[in-house]
Amino acid sequence: MTFQDYLAAQRKRVDDYLAQVLTTEQPRFSKLYEAMNYSLLAGGKRIRPILLLATVEALGQDAAPYTGLACALECIHTYSLIHDDLPCMDDDDLRRGKPTNHVVYGAGLATLAGDGLLTFAFELMASQKGIAPDKLNRCIAVIAKAAGPAGMVGGQAFDLASDGDMAIGREGMELLHRSKTGVIFKAAIDMAAIVTEASPQQKQALDAYASYMGLTFQITDDILDVVGDEALLGKPVGSDARNDKATYVTIFSLDEARRMACEAADKAVQALEPLGPKACFLKELVEHLLVRVH
Amino acid sequence: MTFQDYLAAQRKRVDDYLAQVLTTEQPRFSKLYEAMNYSLLAGGKRIRPILLLATVEALGQDAAPYTGLACALECIHTYSLIHDDLPCMDDDDLRRGKPTNHVVYGAGLATLAGDGLLTFAFELMASQKGIAPDKLNRCIAVIAKAAGPAGMVGGQAFDLASDGDMAIGREGMELLHRSKTGVIFKAAIDMAAIVTEASPQQKQALDAYASYMGLTFQITDDILDVVGDEALLGKPVGSDARNDKATYVTIFSLDEARRMACEAADKAVQALEPLGPKACFLKELVEHLLVRVH
Repeated sequence: MTFQDYLAAQRKRVDDYLAQVLTTEQPRFSKLYEAMNYSLLAGGKRIRPILLLATVEALGQDAAPYTGLACALECIHTYSLIHDDLPCMDDDDLRRGKPTNHVVYGAGLATLAGDGLLTFAFELMASQKGIAPDKLNRCIAVIAKAAGPAGMVGGQAFDLASDGDMAIGREGMELLHRSKTGVIFKAAIDMAAIVTEASPQQKQALDAYASYMGLTFQITDDILDVVGDEALLGKPVGSDARNDKATYVTIFSLDEARRMACEAADKAVQALEPLGPKACFLKELVEHLLVRVH
Repeated sequence: MTFQDYLAAQRKRVDDYLAQVLTTEQPRFSKLYEAMNYSLLAGGKRIRPILLLATVEALGQDAAPYTGLACALECIHTYSLIHDDLPCMDDDDLRRGKPTNHVVYGAGLATLAGDGLLTFAFELMASQKGIAPDKLNRCIAVIAKAAGPAGMVGGQAFDLASDGDMAIGREGMELLHRSKTGVIFKAAIDMAAIVTEASPQQKQALDAYASYMGLTFQITDDILDVVGDEALLGKPVGSDARNDKATYVTIFSLDEARRMACEAADKAVQALEPLGPKACFLKELVEHLLVRVH
């Protein structure tokens, strides 16, 4: 199987699951469910759930039983996008080439659609059958910590406060990137390690991979804002530079950012050596991120 | 111990726990934590956590090990208040006699403070030691379902869509009340029944109590909007009538609403008979709600 086939198959597994997960028989609530599904089924890349599933497979186990757990990550990711786009936050009108949630449904219902997706993610996780309860609890604690005030929400609050401020410097930018995206990638990988009972050696390899994989994603994301194809990205390019935002490109340079991304991707791939050939798709995943910007 | 002493002691237990639970060593996130604590420590009545703790005690067990679980309910309640008050929702400036979160911190940070409290609640629950993992999972599933799109968030979305519309009628108003507050009270009681392993007979009694207790709360809340003391309530009275909102008072009458509240409270008290004398404080709790409006 080629990596592209693999990616398409995993994405289909996630998409099929998500397509049927949020339904209601209460007509009074149907608009809310429509708003949640509008963003949840808007054609995301599903990187976070795929990362969890691919890590389970890299550890030699069947990923199918963990599809629900993986999809909860996508619910959390989607909620964060809806809230980040709100007029009182980044005030973005386009996401993945479509009008953002609040443009279609209004800011009030968009806020609630985000709240609903976040809360539902925890219901989905806690309701998974066939996973030992103590493992589920640890997974819930891991993702809640990563997505909460000490992680993603903290990062977004810092982003909001420092918007248009280059003065946060490299340390501030790295904290921002790490807490907005890195911790969620790490949580996806940690959850896979928990459910598969990874050995300490495997865990060490995965921790290093998570760190460099997250870094690769963050740097390439900053590069894409400069060199990306607006039609492909589904959002305007160049907004970071216009907003004087601290990014890997504005703090370093485009060339230096490209070099740093390659170096991080190489280290991510190297980190997986102890996992052997089963980790091939995890390796290709990080190279796939890199391809976007070359 | 009098009921007032009991209430004060339980409230102190909850307040003491909440006062130390949200701290950060990351200075970049300190404003977010300040915003979360601003609303979390704003002197709420703590009815939801006290309901959980009192139910555990009514079932003959020590409530102390469940303080964290109970406080998670208050985090969820506080998040819902912050988001409900936002300009894009009910646009309220006062809550418990203090400026609302977004008035002090802006709508963006207030949205994130709510997101942070909601996510943290799940971290707090999943991290509780000394409670069997399968019980924790069931508690998380119960409160996530109650607070999510099929419950509280759904109710708020319906409220938002029907604002100022008497046409939703009694059925619509009851759905609204039930999903905005009733399901959370029921979840608090269900969680207590789960951790104490309540018998089917006890569970049946508690289900009936939860239903009538929720109803009592909802009717008295509608009455308070008409007859309440603005200084005591900490928010303007009479807003429901001004907004042509469907409530127990506007659909029936003040006298009829009072009669319905008394009847619901009586039934709540009767429902507890099978639990015996240990349930005395649960009974007094529902009578305490009633006292507010007479």
